[in-house]
Amino acid sequence: MEPTPILDRINTPEQVQNLSYEEIRSLSDELREVIIDRVSQNGGHLASSLGVVDLTLALLAEFTPPHDQIVWDVGHQAYAYKLLTGRKDQFHTLRQYGGITGFPKISESKYDAFGVGHSSTSVSAALGLLRAKKLKGDDGHVIAVIGDGAMTGGMAFEGLNDTGHFSENLTVILNDNQMSIDKNVGGLSRALANLRSSSGYIKTKNRVERFLLKIPLIGRPIARFIRMIKTWIRLLIRRNAPVIFEDLGFHYFGPFDGHNIPLLRKKLQIAKDIDGPVLIHIVTKKGKGYPFAEEDPSSYHGVSPFDRTKGVQPSHTKTFTNAFSDSLVRVGEQYEKVVAICAAMMTSTGLDQFRQHMKLRFFDVGIAEEHAVTMAAGMAVNGFVPVVTLYSTFAQRAYDQLLHDVCLQNLHMVLALDRAGIVGADGMTHQGIYDISMMLSMPNVTLLSPCNYAELDRMLEYAVSSATGLVAVRYPRGAQSEVLAQIPSSEGIEPRVIREGKNVAICALGIMCEQALLAADQLEEHGIHARVIDVRSVKPCQVSTWKSLLTDISEVVTIEDGIAHAGFGTFLLSQLKAAGELKGIKHFEILGVSDQPLIAGSRQILLEKEHMDEHSIVETILSWKE
Amino acid sequence: MEPTPILDRINTPEQVQNLSYEEIRSLSDELREVIIDRVSQNGGHLASSLGVVDLTLALLAEFTPPHDQIVWDVGHQAYAYKLLTGRKDQFHTLRQYGGITGFPKISESKYDAFGVGHSSTSVSAALGLLRAKKLKGDDGHVIAVIGDGAMTGGMAFEGLNDTGHFSENLTVILNDNQMSIDKNVGGLSRALANLRSSSGYIKTKNRVERFLLKIPLIGRPIARFIRMIKTWIRLLIRRNAPVIFEDLGFHYFGPFDGHNIPLLRKKLQIAKDIDGPVLIHIVTKKGKGYPFAEEDPSSYHGVSPFDRTKGVQPSHTKTFTNAFSDSLVRVGEQYEKVVAICAAMMTSTGLDQFRQHMKLRFFDVGIAEEHAVTMAAGMAVNGFVPVVTLYSTFAQRAYDQLLHDVCLQNLHMVLALDRAGIVGADGMTHQGIYDISMMLSMPNVTLLSPCNYAELDRMLEYAVSSATGLVAVRYPRGAQSEVLAQIPSSEGIEPRVIREGKNVAICALGIMCEQALLAADQLEEHGIHARVIDVRSVKPCQVSTWKSLLTDISEVVTIEDGIAHAGFGTFLLSQLKAAGELKGIKHFEILGVSDQPLIAGSRQILLEKEHMDEHSIVETILSWKE
Repeated sequence: MEPTPILDRINTPEQVQNLSYEEIRSLSDELREVIIDRVSQNGGHLASSLGVVDLTLALLAEFTPPHDQIVWDVGHQAYAYKLLTGRKDQFHTLRQYGGITGFPKISESKYDAFGVGHSSTSVSAALGLLRAKKLKGDDGHVIAVIGDGAMTGGMAFEGLNDTGHFSENLTVILNDNQMSIDKNVGGLSRALANLRSSSGYIKTKNRVERFLLKIPLIGRPIARFIRMIKTWIRLLIRRNAPVIFEDLGFHYFGPFDGHNIPLLRKKLQIAKDIDGPVLIHIVTKKGKGYPFAEEDPSSYHGVSPFDRTKGVQPSHTKTFTNAFSDSLVRVGEQYEKVVAICAAMMTSTGLDQFRQHMKLRFFDVGIAEEHAVTMAAGMAVNGFVPVVTLYSTFAQRAYDQLLHDVCLQNLHMVLALDRAGIVGADGMTHQGIYDISMMLSMPNVTLLSPCNYAELDRMLEYAVSSATGLVAVRYPRGAQSEVLAQIPSSEGIEPRVIREGKNVAICALGIMCEQALLAADQLEEHGIHARVIDVRSVKPCQVSTWKSLLTDISEVVTIEDGIAHAGFGTFLLSQLKAAGELKGIKHFEILGVSDQPLIAGSRQILLEKEHMDEHSIVETILSWKE
Repeated sequence: MEPTPILDRINTPEQVQNLSYEEIRSLSDELREVIIDRVSQNGGHLASSLGVVDLTLALLAEFTPPHDQIVWDVGHQAYAYKLLTGRKDQFHTLRQYGGITGFPKISESKYDAFGVGHSSTSVSAALGLLRAKKLKGDDGHVIAVIGDGAMTGGMAFEGLNDTGHFSENLTVILNDNQMSIDKNVGGLSRALANLRSSSGYIKTKNRVERFLLKIPLIGRPIARFIRMIKTWIRLLIRRNAPVIFEDLGFHYFGPFDGHNIPLLRKKLQIAKDIDGPVLIHIVTKKGKGYPFAEEDPSSYHGVSPFDRTKGVQPSHTKTFTNAFSDSLVRVGEQYEKVVAICAAMMTSTGLDQFRQHMKLRFFDVGIAEEHAVTMAAGMAVNGFVPVVTLYSTFAQRAYDQLLHDVCLQNLHMVLALDRAGIVGADGMTHQGIYDISMMLSMPNVTLLSPCNYAELDRMLEYAVSSATGLVAVRYPRGAQSEVLAQIPSSEGIEPRVIREGKNVAICALGIMCEQALLAADQLEEHGIHARVIDVRSVKPCQVSTWKSLLTDISEVVTIEDGIAHAGFGTFLLSQLKAAGELKGIKHFEILGVSDQPLIAGSRQILLEKEHMDEHSIVETILSWKE
């Protein structure tokens, strides 16, 4: 790595305020160097973090956290901010178990004003921070930084609407990089493009507004006069410039070059002086400063470790996402009624292939999970079978739409839940561990979890062709292991025995079958013959099937990569109890994620920590023999 | 009731298309007559339904359902539509058990294109219907009717954004009555007010656009020329008219008088001819045609039966909402850090009193539950204790915000869940039966349910002053019964015995204590002495406490007004099993709502139907004695 003499001197963010222009420019390069170096080793969110290095410097040059508070929407772009706010010495632990997280987190640093991870929350959170400051008589500023992708999330609109109505003193920085992860969509994105192309209008308008701001506001008549002038100017010079933000009550400034630090500082100074909500629209380049990433920002959104001199190389490891992608193309070609819908994550959820083959039946709705699900419900009403692909954690955003718009109406829809279970380095806000609990109470739901690619393929076909209602198919991040690959596929979706044994049953959901099979091997050494049951279907749960699967069994362990106290195991227990089938069962232990936020770490570390690895299964069963 | 000669002749909606202007005018009066008459007897949503009678007639005069599809946002305004689409003979059963529902419902009629109940879903659903039609080559139109209140919900924005981007052929009718339930808020509402006040601009613009529409579009140059003219006109004549919808890619027309049927028909004809998304902005009067309701539309939003000659009289029955309202004022005065936040339902959730006393600490964010919760989280970070009041069913909209923004960060916030449990006549989409399951899996949650007002008061104070994390307090619609009122309040939030007994334990959540106590009375007649336990706290669940409460008990019934298979009873069962405390318990029955949508009906009828009344408890216990 190149030396970083200026960064080495920065211990608190205020020190940025005393740097010369040249020093800030050099610091910008140094930050990029550190980020590229570290992300190439640890993996992480590269392109977005590189894009806002200059903005971060401008913000810290003009504002003083924690007195001023900055909320980063989504938060995966905050690496430069972390480096400048006292975390450069821990930066090598980025996204590691026990290390600093990949997202802002209140408990990690007083400089992190609000924890983030999911999209479009920043304006709401920042408005709350600001209102609290106001009530306390604290004069610090609050700034929300939000991307143009996140701006398509309805929640951001709700926040802008409230802020604008009450003319709150909030500064919103719209970081327009024309991308979310894939290319951005939505009427709004077109409006922003118009703004970008009407810079003549913008320049004049801004010059006039700056001038007007200097006129002292004495009484109503003058204020009205100034409004009149502003309107007249607007009439005179505007072309197609959209004023959506002005309609919502914001002072709009932009678009500006988001890499011109002196310019950004000037605009931030103006924002500080204005009474009322301000939106500063800046244009940045994702991946700025790393040629590979500038050229192909999608591929450098979230990356695994790579060689920085060669860039990210195409991976040849097949993942569950790839398997789903292949299966959906196969099923889509067979069943004409299948349509596929994603929320700004075409490539990440494997829909790129479907789009190539069946473009008319593919819909990307932008970062808008709520809309995605209800739009799909509309298509289902008119005879199609929508397959909506969402990361498990982002499906949380559509809880009400799944329940109210799909399940209560008993519409036939498939929900492909990618990244279900433990996700690893992305940490707490991205764990896919709540989906089972989330959907268990909804009526007309089938909830399936395949243990390998072959099962995923079969379940997807079942979900499309044979099921009714909402069918959720949940599968994990990453690849199937050797152990999982060897589990044969079989008919139906009912629970099934995948390894015979007579003393104890291990009922494993999805890829937890691996830990179950490994535990069964170890138990043999203790003379215990464990029956392993591949759960497959959390719901429906046929007690008669379970009764026969558990014949002669008096000890049961269930294991799932979801919340233990409100998931599959608990549900099975209550169903068996209700049917009077628990009498012969002496021990019934439910293994799964415990009742606390699950932090970042490798899957293996987290399985151990949560007593969900094969050794924990073995220990549980051996403890009964003591 | 006045005679309704024209309505009597209408058996299918197409017949509206053959009526003369005078007949349609009379039909409009007849519909209002029937609606006022019926709602005054059955209760229901009056003001909003009266507001759109004329719009409904215009729509049916121009469009032909089910070939054309109309999606009513929220849906409580669809009474006239129900009367005209084959349901006038069942209209007397409105909102009754087994009768027609208060909202559009697919399974009720082929004319109901999409089931609704919650706000802001219509644009998404309509877009889905339309995309399906397009894929099938079906040329029917799709229309979404959405109020200005519902338009503040972020999901509506997501729908508009997607529609505008792809220039889909959707017609959106913005029904602007300047209200949601209480007065509407948000920057958008101000923008709409500007639109309403700039009719000079609008008139000219519409006249020009109508003219332009008649010019044949031959090739690109002419199209560009026309765009130029349009822009020029816009420059020339616009004043402060907001163009938020145009920015999103819609053709905007309006605002128009929403009670002028011939005018509305003309505008709808224009919309039919336009290729691409159209938004027609109409202004209507809530309660139109019933003077009491016109004067005070808030009070006539949702009403119980009343005398139509006198209007709705102020009720003197104290409800849980009133009790909460009093308690919050008391607690708010004692604890300065309390702030109160609602989503467009100040009066309905009892915050009007708090606002009167502590205006600066009150926030109404509009119909925006997601934003409400995250904004509150921001205030919590900066030292306040937000009390967010939501109906249980609407809290579903904020699932991800509760989990991701509040619980994962372990912020201290109070969620007051009004209308928890069975809500009665509003039916399926409004039942508050999912909140327990929804929150059970979230970390850092305390979930409380008081059995009466005194307990609600104590729990609210506990939630504000002594608790950490997210504290949800759930309480039902309506009043406490005599039986409930007599249960004494006591210290703490832990489960407690409220009636001694030694043979069997009935563990009842919240107001289900009434059924438990009544069942205990009946069981005495059979020589069975039932112990009744007031659960109070679903979570945390201290096994040691439960162990002592269940001393010497071998039979347990739990009862809750939530989903039985994924709620309190199941959770308690699993906790007892895990602790090895289930051995002595021979029977453990979980009573609650079954796994299917719960339709409308009186609370008593639904309790019976779901085997949750006192007789069902008695039967369950007696069956063990056989």
